[in-house]
Amino acid sequence: MTSIPELATAFRPASWTGYVSRSLLQDLLPKVGQPGIVSFGLGLPAPELFPVAEFSAACADVLERNPKSLQYGPPSAALKSHIVLLMADRGVDCNERQVFLTHGAQQGVHLLVELLLERNRQIIAEEFCYPGFQQIVSFFQPEILSVSSDLHTGMDIDKVDWYLSHGTRPAFIYTIADGHNPLGISLSTEKRERLASLSLSYGVPLLEEDPYGHLNYSTKHLHPLAAQAKETSFYVGSFSKVLAPSMRVGWVVVPENLIPYLAILKESSDLDMAPFSQYVVAHMLDTGFLPEHLHRLRSEYRRRRDVMLEALRTYFPPGTRWTVPDSGLYVWVQLPHYCDTMNTLNAALNKYRVAYMPGQAFTTRMSLAARCGMRLNFSYPTIEQIVTGIRSLGELFGSVSAHSAEDHTHL
Amino acid sequence: MTSIPELATAFRPASWTGYVSRSLLQDLLPKVGQPGIVSFGLGLPAPELFPVAEFSAACADVLERNPKSLQYGPPSAALKSHIVLLMADRGVDCNERQVFLTHGAQQGVHLLVELLLERNRQIIAEEFCYPGFQQIVSFFQPEILSVSSDLHTGMDIDKVDWYLSHGTRPAFIYTIADGHNPLGISLSTEKRERLASLSLSYGVPLLEEDPYGHLNYSTKHLHPLAAQAKETSFYVGSFSKVLAPSMRVGWVVVPENLIPYLAILKESSDLDMAPFSQYVVAHMLDTGFLPEHLHRLRSEYRRRRDVMLEALRTYFPPGTRWTVPDSGLYVWVQLPHYCDTMNTLNAALNKYRVAYMPGQAFTTRMSLAARCGMRLNFSYPTIEQIVTGIRSLGELFGSVSAHSAEDHTHL
Repeated sequence: MTSIPELATAFRPASWTGYVSRSLLQDLLPKVGQPGIVSFGLGLPAPELFPVAEFSAACADVLERNPKSLQYGPPSAALKSHIVLLMADRGVDCNERQVFLTHGAQQGVHLLVELLLERNRQIIAEEFCYPGFQQIVSFFQPEILSVSSDLHTGMDIDKVDWYLSHGTRPAFIYTIADGHNPLGISLSTEKRERLASLSLSYGVPLLEEDPYGHLNYSTKHLHPLAAQAKETSFYVGSFSKVLAPSMRVGWVVVPENLIPYLAILKESSDLDMAPFSQYVVAHMLDTGFLPEHLHRLRSEYRRRRDVMLEALRTYFPPGTRWTVPDSGLYVWVQLPHYCDTMNTLNAALNKYRVAYMPGQAFTTRMSLAARCGMRLNFSYPTIEQIVTGIRSLGELFGSVSAHSAEDHTHL
Repeated sequence: MTSIPELATAFRPASWTGYVSRSLLQDLLPKVGQPGIVSFGLGLPAPELFPVAEFSAACADVLERNPKSLQYGPPSAALKSHIVLLMADRGVDCNERQVFLTHGAQQGVHLLVELLLERNRQIIAEEFCYPGFQQIVSFFQPEILSVSSDLHTGMDIDKVDWYLSHGTRPAFIYTIADGHNPLGISLSTEKRERLASLSLSYGVPLLEEDPYGHLNYSTKHLHPLAAQAKETSFYVGSFSKVLAPSMRVGWVVVPENLIPYLAILKESSDLDMAPFSQYVVAHMLDTGFLPEHLHRLRSEYRRRRDVMLEALRTYFPPGTRWTVPDSGLYVWVQLPHYCDTMNTLNAALNKYRVAYMPGQAFTTRMSLAARCGMRLNFSYPTIEQIVTGIRSLGELFGSVSAHSAEDHTHL
């Protein structure tokens, strides 16, 4: 045995620790989740609408009738069959062999990014996009080819076309076509067709997240991009918003020949064995309760959305604009140019007791739209909270407006 | 809008798809899991010992009493407190702020590898090691500095010392100190001390998996390496073998200052929200039933181990050696040199209706030990199955021995 140097416990962690951090969303979680606060901040489903009795019955039944439900086992075939039917509801024709079960939608996106992206490659994404996605790709340090979004029709497809027709071959194009997070927009029919066609023509994968697709509030039922761009579609679905987030059950639909690669990635990540929650969700769907449950969610969330939009009209300062979501859980508000939603967050929380998510949480690029923008969630707060919360925010931004006018006087 | 080229759906997936494959273990799963087969092949807990009633009561109680159990929420603080106590049982002094909850042990190892390893760095690992670990690191293409293991005392620490004292600075040293998978060995007290001391002295992290630490069958209660090498210990624990695999609840204990990095990794992987299963497991532990349950598991698994060892003595050909596990779920068998356990697997499955895991599943390097070695699991089969299964394998290898003798005669 050779001599050993002095105690030296310093070791270097992997280099990503130098450039990846928690998302701003995570940093804000403790703030916007404080008790006694009206929270428009997070994308939480309404807890009073959770199907608790159905979950309880399903847990008991699964444990009693399926002796293998606690053991290691392959992903639930029964759940895959249910998902094929849910996809058909969304206008997507697929089979069980294309369905891959995940530990929530975040894992779905993560696995697809690992499958498609490579260090320093390019991707196309919207200027405002879900921070959980931004965090996944930040490990790869891609060049993000940014595309703006129209607040009525969604993503700027001319810009996507421009990139592709000028020779760019990104690893994928990322979007949420229905109930966009954070913008609350649904991509227009014409833009869907163009985007799907571009994806197919150039052979560029479409990474489409669709957690809100079954939460539709309008008579228009648009199909996801996956319905049109089959060969290049990488679709991510989730039960988090329609059943319960803590079950952590999501799925991916991809071309069948790529499933074995996802299996390798998931085996490495967490073994790719069926968790208990897959059996529970499959059993709940067996009972056929979902359509009625979805109907209940849609009508209640539509009501909350309408109350929020009415309150915005009543209480927010002139010059404010907002999106009118046909799907999903969010309204995007664009305040007048003198408002800085990151700056006012502390006052909102501490003085007005209201939480929202400032625009900057959703973009890495500072812009007027980011500075004056905010995401408001309408699924979690009650009707009464929506009215009082929006009224309070209206007061707050109204006072900013007054100060701004004063400042002007002093110039 | 510019003109679009012909349909071109070919796109290239990430380069790892060219060099990472499913583990041999996964390839063998469908074979060794066939019905009507006595299976020594997989590391499954005994299903008849699953605490089904306790799980059922916990699911019902959690859903009834904890309205937040279905919502997004931070990792369960209650479960972390229970884990601190379980670690104390194992002789490890830690606090809640060092405990990080994971989606099973595989995710724990995966996150730690992502934290510590970088492409093309070196690691130290045993010649025979868990395929799930090999698969995780294969994405990074590290140089694996291989260390052999003595079948009584475990890992060759002289070799580890040699590497480190000659200037090698691997990203980490990987091992399972108790109930080694696949070898069934527990590292000797003297080797534990030396390995912990080397890790501390050179500042090289110890990545220690301990899924079997609470399944101890001897009067010796050895402490994991984490008890000694605190500053350099990266410990992974799991409820899979002591409660149920499908709950997918594991944990990691690391130096407190590294927890934020794990939170970033897990946020990116799957959001790092508490799944329902964390609440269920915490509630089960609240009831205080675990010590008695562990006692039951230990005494039943000890009985099965003893029956297996006795059957090996009775039925296996002369010249066979095996390990006598003090912990865990596996016996490692080293057959005489004329046996090739990969070659005989088909006959074992099809003619003798017995499954085992050939040595080659656990190593990337072909060797006599791999060729003649096999892992036998004793937790899943019943006592009767163990006797008939080992007798059948004894016949199989006895006939190989006879052929081999005949072949010799013809030389």
